[in-house]
Amino acid sequence: MTTNMQVLLASRPVGWVTEANFKIINTAIAKPGAGQILVRNHYLSLDPYMRGRMDDVKSYAAKQELDQVMGGRTVGEVIESNNPKFKVGDIVAGAYGWQQYGCSDGAEVRKIDVSSVPMSAYLGVIGMPGVTAWIGLLDICQPQPGETVVVSAAAGAVGSAVGQIAKLKGCRAVGIAGGRQKCDYVVQELGFDACIDYKAGRLNEDLKAATPKGIDCNFENVGGEILDAVLRRTNPFSRIAVCGLISQYNATEPYAMKNFRMVLTNRIKLQGFIVGDRMNLWSPALKDLGDWVASGKLKYRETVAQGLENAPKALIGVFKGENFGKQLVKLI
Amino acid sequence: MTTNMQVLLASRPVGWVTEANFKIINTAIAKPGAGQILVRNHYLSLDPYMRGRMDDVKSYAAKQELDQVMGGRTVGEVIESNNPKFKVGDIVAGAYGWQQYGCSDGAEVRKIDVSSVPMSAYLGVIGMPGVTAWIGLLDICQPQPGETVVVSAAAGAVGSAVGQIAKLKGCRAVGIAGGRQKCDYVVQELGFDACIDYKAGRLNEDLKAATPKGIDCNFENVGGEILDAVLRRTNPFSRIAVCGLISQYNATEPYAMKNFRMVLTNRIKLQGFIVGDRMNLWSPALKDLGDWVASGKLKYRETVAQGLENAPKALIGVFKGENFGKQLVKLI
Repeated sequence: MTTNMQVLLASRPVGWVTEANFKIINTAIAKPGAGQILVRNHYLSLDPYMRGRMDDVKSYAAKQELDQVMGGRTVGEVIESNNPKFKVGDIVAGAYGWQQYGCSDGAEVRKIDVSSVPMSAYLGVIGMPGVTAWIGLLDICQPQPGETVVVSAAAGAVGSAVGQIAKLKGCRAVGIAGGRQKCDYVVQELGFDACIDYKAGRLNEDLKAATPKGIDCNFENVGGEILDAVLRRTNPFSRIAVCGLISQYNATEPYAMKNFRMVLTNRIKLQGFIVGDRMNLWSPALKDLGDWVASGKLKYRETVAQGLENAPKALIGVFKGENFGKQLVKLI
Repeated sequence: MTTNMQVLLASRPVGWVTEANFKIINTAIAKPGAGQILVRNHYLSLDPYMRGRMDDVKSYAAKQELDQVMGGRTVGEVIESNNPKFKVGDIVAGAYGWQQYGCSDGAEVRKIDVSSVPMSAYLGVIGMPGVTAWIGLLDICQPQPGETVVVSAAAGAVGSAVGQIAKLKGCRAVGIAGGRQKCDYVVQELGFDACIDYKAGRLNEDLKAATPKGIDCNFENVGGEILDAVLRRTNPFSRIAVCGLISQYNATEPYAMKNFRMVLTNRIKLQGFIVGDRMNLWSPALKDLGDWVASGKLKYRETVAQGLENAPKALIGVFKGENFGKQLVKLI
């Protein structure tokens, strides 16, 4: 390869993201200057938070500028180095965005150990999504043994970790996911106690059946009618970690929540969070996650799109719930 | 007087409470048995939580049974005593409910000191409503000096204390109340920095003007469109104590909240609470409140209905926002 393919944000979506919102270009590969490194990116992570960045409104994520390379986390290999901290062949995790090559002074890049886990895991279960699951469940919800934990988008990168960690902590883990196949995966492969297919049209009834003792903790990734249904089943003093509201990101009109009153009735503690606000917890979280993955207690799955040119379509798929586990793009 | 007037719940309201939901009867005054005391109630407290108890659904307050004396807090004077802990003439606070006389073993009753404050204050600013304000603001919201605190139902028993405590803690205090008269009271007599009359029809604009640095803490008593408007003005890492949702208590259809997404965008901590869950905080709260009232730093106002027979109408008035400060019924 002699050029660096990049994906830019060409226009801001109104409602659903479309491929027309992106522009793919080929530029010259950067020459690393003094103190800089050049990295060939192997994997790009696609994440729900990217939708918020595409809007021109206040959001928890910094705004994505138009005609600039889409931001995103990457893992790859150092292929040139003018920085004594890195040598050619080092495998690194960074945030070079939607492009095949990244060039920087390496300040935001860290070397990762791929001797026992593949590099892609650093974008998922032992990366940002895994830390998100750990923080939201263990720091915000603080589930006790025997309590019932419900997590939406249960087959996703974050949700699949949440339910497994809940099981490790002695809880009943109940997932909510779209489709029978995802639910089967969550229960049969990941060991959740139950999983509700919200597309089956019996959300309230199925949730009631799956949570006979009510809900003590909810890790919310979806929002909208799913959160409304969860609120109906909450127990007194339950905790809700609001990690994502993916059902709302492409909506032009916000969902009108009806069961907010349960927050008072059940004295719920409900907290929105993003993982970047809590950098002090990354180290203990990554330690736990690494141990659990190494010992086989924490499983994960990846959905991998091939080729950067397919990243826009794959991101749209994330919003449509097409991915199982972590959505990645393989760039090489 | 030779009889004990009592107000019973005759039927459960559908939507708004009406006087027809109550029944007034006159019964014989109880004769205190061994270990018991007889109390003549001087004041009855009317509180928003009473609406929840009137429904036959799960709520944070225990259900009010039909054809039983309506529950409620009272202060009064011991007029007969077979209990060595009490003597005739003692002034006591208890929860004898909507009746002129109460008879019990005194276990739930405490003697109060009326040497420097009137007994009615023990139903308000140095009673449950004051403690509610203290806990929701200081324990849940934890406002820092210079932050902006917004409280709805600002002229009510709880809200008026919240804003004054916020000022004592060095915050900007902004009230929301219904009507110019209440707003003037809140700003001119209680010292709030601003107060928005939500009935003026410019809630979003007025709230924006009154909170130039956004909202850091919200003490929510009302809910519905008022909470929705507050959410739009929240700052990152703001805190919301959900104490009441009085706009919803008489609604047959729940308000459809539109701005819940701000919980995630701004990583808000939002918590429902009731004062009875946190008995460990009553003692420090009552100490502070008593000191502040005695030193003139914490002002309060009472709206007093005369005669138990007017209690139903007065409670309906609370839901319509007719009261200034604490709503009481004088029974004697």
